[in-house]
Amino acid sequence: MSVLVVGSTALDSIKTPYRENPRLLGGSASHAAVAASFFGPVKLVGIVGEDFPKRYVQLYRRHGIDLQGLQVAAGKTFHWAGEYEVNMNNRRTLTTELGVFESFTPNLPDVYRRTPFVLLANIAPALQHHVLDQMRRPRFVAADTMDLWLNIALDDLLKLLPRIDAFVLNDSEARQLAQEDNVIAAAKKIHRLGPKYVIVKKGEHGALLSSPDGMFISPAFPLHRVVDPTGAGDSFVGGLMGYLAASKGPLAANLKRGMIYGNAVASFCCEGFGLTRTTRVTRDAIDQRVRHLERMLRF
Amino acid sequence: MSVLVVGSTALDSIKTPYRENPRLLGGSASHAAVAASFFGPVKLVGIVGEDFPKRYVQLYRRHGIDLQGLQVAAGKTFHWAGEYEVNMNNRRTLTTELGVFESFTPNLPDVYRRTPFVLLANIAPALQHHVLDQMRRPRFVAADTMDLWLNIALDDLLKLLPRIDAFVLNDSEARQLAQEDNVIAAAKKIHRLGPKYVIVKKGEHGALLSSPDGMFISPAFPLHRVVDPTGAGDSFVGGLMGYLAASKGPLAANLKRGMIYGNAVASFCCEGFGLTRTTRVTRDAIDQRVRHLERMLRF
Repeated sequence: MSVLVVGSTALDSIKTPYRENPRLLGGSASHAAVAASFFGPVKLVGIVGEDFPKRYVQLYRRHGIDLQGLQVAAGKTFHWAGEYEVNMNNRRTLTTELGVFESFTPNLPDVYRRTPFVLLANIAPALQHHVLDQMRRPRFVAADTMDLWLNIALDDLLKLLPRIDAFVLNDSEARQLAQEDNVIAAAKKIHRLGPKYVIVKKGEHGALLSSPDGMFISPAFPLHRVVDPTGAGDSFVGGLMGYLAASKGPLAANLKRGMIYGNAVASFCCEGFGLTRTTRVTRDAIDQRVRHLERMLRF
Repeated sequence: MSVLVVGSTALDSIKTPYRENPRLLGGSASHAAVAASFFGPVKLVGIVGEDFPKRYVQLYRRHGIDLQGLQVAAGKTFHWAGEYEVNMNNRRTLTTELGVFESFTPNLPDVYRRTPFVLLANIAPALQHHVLDQMRRPRFVAADTMDLWLNIALDDLLKLLPRIDAFVLNDSEARQLAQEDNVIAAAKKIHRLGPKYVIVKKGEHGALLSSPDGMFISPAFPLHRVVDPTGAGDSFVGGLMGYLAASKGPLAANLKRGMIYGNAVASFCCEGFGLTRTTRVTRDAIDQRVRHLERMLRF
């Protein structure tokens, strides 16, 4: 079955202590859609400007991503520039030029409305609502977010939570939202806001799933070298949703395995700037990394 | 088989945002010895002053810990006072009164010298050397450390590393020692300094084992509430060594399972001040927590 991915489509200029890379393909929807594409069909909803390089459209196409929902508007593509510190955990934004993204309204092509799996990648909660308003009984809806929305659009976000199945956020966002310093306790509190599944991303430490069956720990794949973690969280949730949509059997079990797959795709994402490494990956390589992770967890 | 534990025996005054607790039983050897005692016989080497409360001697005894190596000297017991911040990850030392610990020479009773499993818990590397000098062909030696020794006794520590089988340190210490920001790459570098097994403790995120067979990921037991993490690392390595000494079969496999057991004991340690929770634990409760952890990792 297919996955609908809605989020930001951007050009990222990424600086790390080791290198600079201007105007890479980025944005939450780009990372998530490419990650999901290894498992099955993906439909993208996003907006780009007239300056959006053709090679990036071709990149989406090479991954079989349906682009009927990609709007091309007069103006410039969302451009983000950021810098990572030596430890690769702290990111500093240098520039945010919203461009055409500022007036983005994610209107869905008719053929998108019955997509069974919906990933509301990181984007303003009001836009996430707008997407759900257009969907016809999706089977499973996951939403990602970021600290910005907790700060400036909390009401919209709180209204979104009862409408989704899985809420994905990072550990510091979970602490902030639940006003609770312990991450495990924070996840429990977030359930009460609506979502049946709460997925907490912990960066290099992996992710946690809190569900009615209890907790599931999904450790990250240990990397010897992190080149650029931008988009790792989006790749994680994209891989997870792609795996879910492609899998038969009970959802609860698929969700766990999907997180491991998400971690595997995210680990590739970190090994190159932007999407440069992820786009060279194959489903075989992902399966291999999952088996490797399984071995590292066996005792 | 039995485990020899050498380290500090102290009185800890621990302040957290929630409570103060003066003069609890503490020290690396106390935490490690109690943790190991759930699995089999333990021999303790340490030093206390005349002010050391009798109830703490009884506590060791209740855990079947052999105290022939516990020296009682004229003077005061090592007293440490510290404070944890709200997030329980940052610790600030308020007082360090070394007392009799300042002149500690860990001389082993003759009957200790053939103990097959040796845990050199956190203590000056020169004293760890002195213990090894007295041992007769131990089967397996693990050493723990802390940032202090990396700063003031690095030469002694570097000379120790080729003499031990497993080196245990936390992530920031691994980064410092290897002068390498990536923890996985740091662990690889540390192998070249001598130890076959490098175990990196990551606090609430668990621990990693780097061995000739590859990496093993041992996630921490997710806790809803951390009361006091003091001694968690010592409990982890104590539980690990206790499990190893009690287990038959191949060392490499036992080491992995031992880390999971170590994590389980460490999780109990965090649930109470000092040793108050750990000492109320049973082997059954530890086994149960290991099974629970196994379930949370199954996919």
